[in-house]
Amino acid sequence: MQEIDLIINGGKALLIDSENTCLDRASVAINAGDIIAVGHTENIAKQYHAKKNIIAKDSLIMPGFVNCHTHAAMTCFRGIADDLELMDWLNNYIFPAEARNVNKELAYWGSLLAATEMIKSGTTTFCDMYIFEDETARAAKTAGMRCLIGEVLFDFPSPNFKTPEEGLAYTRALIEKWEDDPLINIIVEPHALYTCSPALLIEAKKLADNYNVSLGFHLLENAAEKKQLEEKFGKSAVSFLKDIGYLNERMLAFHCVCLSEEDMRLFADHGCKTGHNPASNMKLASGVAPVPDMLKAGITVGLGTDGCASNNNLDMIKEMSTAAKLHKVARLDPTVMDARTVVRMATIEGAKALCMEKTIGSLEEGKKADIIIIGLNEPHLTPLYNEYSHLVYAMSGADVDTVLINGKIVMENRKLLTINEEEVMQKVREIAVKVKQSLRK
Amino acid sequence: MQEIDLIINGGKALLIDSENTCLDRASVAINAGDIIAVGHTENIAKQYHAKKNIIAKDSLIMPGFVNCHTHAAMTCFRGIADDLELMDWLNNYIFPAEARNVNKELAYWGSLLAATEMIKSGTTTFCDMYIFEDETARAAKTAGMRCLIGEVLFDFPSPNFKTPEEGLAYTRALIEKWEDDPLINIIVEPHALYTCSPALLIEAKKLADNYNVSLGFHLLENAAEKKQLEEKFGKSAVSFLKDIGYLNERMLAFHCVCLSEEDMRLFADHGCKTGHNPASNMKLASGVAPVPDMLKAGITVGLGTDGCASNNNLDMIKEMSTAAKLHKVARLDPTVMDARTVVRMATIEGAKALCMEKTIGSLEEGKKADIIIIGLNEPHLTPLYNEYSHLVYAMSGADVDTVLINGKIVMENRKLLTINEEEVMQKVREIAVKVKQSLRK
Repeated sequence: MQEIDLIINGGKALLIDSENTCLDRASVAINAGDIIAVGHTENIAKQYHAKKNIIAKDSLIMPGFVNCHTHAAMTCFRGIADDLELMDWLNNYIFPAEARNVNKELAYWGSLLAATEMIKSGTTTFCDMYIFEDETARAAKTAGMRCLIGEVLFDFPSPNFKTPEEGLAYTRALIEKWEDDPLINIIVEPHALYTCSPALLIEAKKLADNYNVSLGFHLLENAAEKKQLEEKFGKSAVSFLKDIGYLNERMLAFHCVCLSEEDMRLFADHGCKTGHNPASNMKLASGVAPVPDMLKAGITVGLGTDGCASNNNLDMIKEMSTAAKLHKVARLDPTVMDARTVVRMATIEGAKALCMEKTIGSLEEGKKADIIIIGLNEPHLTPLYNEYSHLVYAMSGADVDTVLINGKIVMENRKLLTINEEEVMQKVREIAVKVKQSLRK
Repeated sequence: MQEIDLIINGGKALLIDSENTCLDRASVAINAGDIIAVGHTENIAKQYHAKKNIIAKDSLIMPGFVNCHTHAAMTCFRGIADDLELMDWLNNYIFPAEARNVNKELAYWGSLLAATEMIKSGTTTFCDMYIFEDETARAAKTAGMRCLIGEVLFDFPSPNFKTPEEGLAYTRALIEKWEDDPLINIIVEPHALYTCSPALLIEAKKLADNYNVSLGFHLLENAAEKKQLEEKFGKSAVSFLKDIGYLNERMLAFHCVCLSEEDMRLFADHGCKTGHNPASNMKLASGVAPVPDMLKAGITVGLGTDGCASNNNLDMIKEMSTAAKLHKVARLDPTVMDARTVVRMATIEGAKALCMEKTIGSLEEGKKADIIIIGLNEPHLTPLYNEYSHLVYAMSGADVDTVLINGKIVMENRKLLTINEEEVMQKVREIAVKVKQSLRK
């Protein structure tokens, strides 16, 4: 009998494989960070003996959630301003707050608070765009979280760089620094087509191509942006992207609220990836992305929360519920975005969006052990007719009991093992005092 | 110094009074079920000495949520069928499951499970419509919850009555039985205009008038119902209601997705009340109620979850988030349904909808002590710039620590004091086994 690191024993397991297998009395065998076997508890027990066993009775075992779009450090601005016109919100609150406060310290502690919140609601991988991303990488390492992160690039200066060239150089340094890290992955991230010159967009693409990494950016978040870009380019934004050679399988566009039929065809033909952020799109009144049509066209759609200034949480279980319901009412069709489709968007489809589907997103032999265990013995999850339904329509982030990332237990029975929660909250509260003062100036 | 039953000490308090007061370092003094004083901790400490003190440091003290529309016992059908066409869902799942399974036992245990879930997410009062409502009353008494409940009335037989006359008689008996109860209140509840004959509607109205109780029913839940009723009556449903004398301050209409400008004017002129159920309206693809217009017209709008077959939870914090975001995206206006408006809908406006605003809905001297205490020392609630924003956009039902109803502590530090959770879940699981079997027939 083989001795291995860890066995998770005796729960229901949603594998999120191509057959959408749900196993009763399942066990997952883990060694050296990898899932080495998934199967019925008796079979696993016959083959393996583990140094540590986690009993997952009355629990659901599944892959951790993949949050496809965050601005992690913006936890520091959570709830600073809501319910405002977009330009009022940006120009009078978010931009001044950022310009006066974002530094390495805020980036690190804000990102670590985000990691805390994400682990506690079952997210094991996040894709981040913000400023001083090396600090976000450091926070993810501390937390033991997997991530794909990029420094936001635009034409104007940021708190981290004076010129776009400096931003590109910082990104290149990030790629080289974290190249061999098991958890940290780097993406090149020009902010958007309305904040980056064509020259910057092209340089960013070259950088991504040189290192064979993903290229992510905000795209067509609302009708005003669509109009502005059409006027700027004399053609649709997606046609422009095609012309500058952007459309490929490593391209990841966030939001995509205003995609046309033709845009979708181009995305599908080129294997482009997208991230859907329904709560942010609702809260900022951006509109409803044509996700059912995107799925029908064969486009990979991951799910993301966006940042804490525009959501205001990083809870993928809330996001699944929002995604499932929004499209039903928008189309007056209760059959679109069924629970299973949405759970897949939050796991394996998200992994595909980040080009990580060979590593994460399902409970399958050979994948990394990014696994969450959710307690089912709760009044709001009783009775249990259908696991997917509960995940999307009844569950809460607080139901997540235990989280493993890369085979390491980062939360056990709701106790975080990698992060000092109280310290992180205290640091962010101190930062928030300064943020508040800065807005009074 | 006066000796009293209980003081809640040292938290932030959202009073939900007409000035939207938020007190720092607040205390609430409670005696014989009533709030006898609310004020700064030092002032309360000078005046009162309590038999029991609850320390609410790092917490938010506020009135409990009022859930304006539930079908409590339908917890037994939570997740039995989702993502289906309305008529497929009703005719092939919900109606057969109900016809074959609803009895007193299901009504009691299903309602008690609902009460468990509601208390654990901060709801202190619910307005219920279902079958065997005397069992729901009994469950609410067990749980120590406040409620306004009514037996659903329609022309066809129910598991509880063969004729509408029997349903009316059952309702009258409920009113008389629970007349002097401090927690249980009865409402007369014809199901809807498409399931009740005008004769039944008129008898129901007479009954409500005789006892001076509220009259509640589903109204204009989707466009198909609107069309059907217009064809049936040769006029709008609300005009018909006016003709039969329905429009008054004790009328409470659930859903109201398809209200016209003229309907809203009539409702406002007559002081009619409404219950808004955004999650259910989204999940069933019913449409978006014109709530911002209803509020502008001066109509009282409470918030409700609807039943667990169409939501699938009873969490008012989730419902607030949904309400705030849905209308923003539906109108492409981020300023509608701001967080404060939504929190008021879930508390004092809900109390008004149930004609209970003199008793509950705010933390004010003389009102019943229906109070919740929410822990703020959580990563997803850090930092704290604005309490209303966190309630609507960041919080989770699981953040509710302690719940008082009518001055009695029903949950303390997440431990239920009136209900044996494990027993309730076990009973409902046994019922669910039968429900599942019944659908295989």
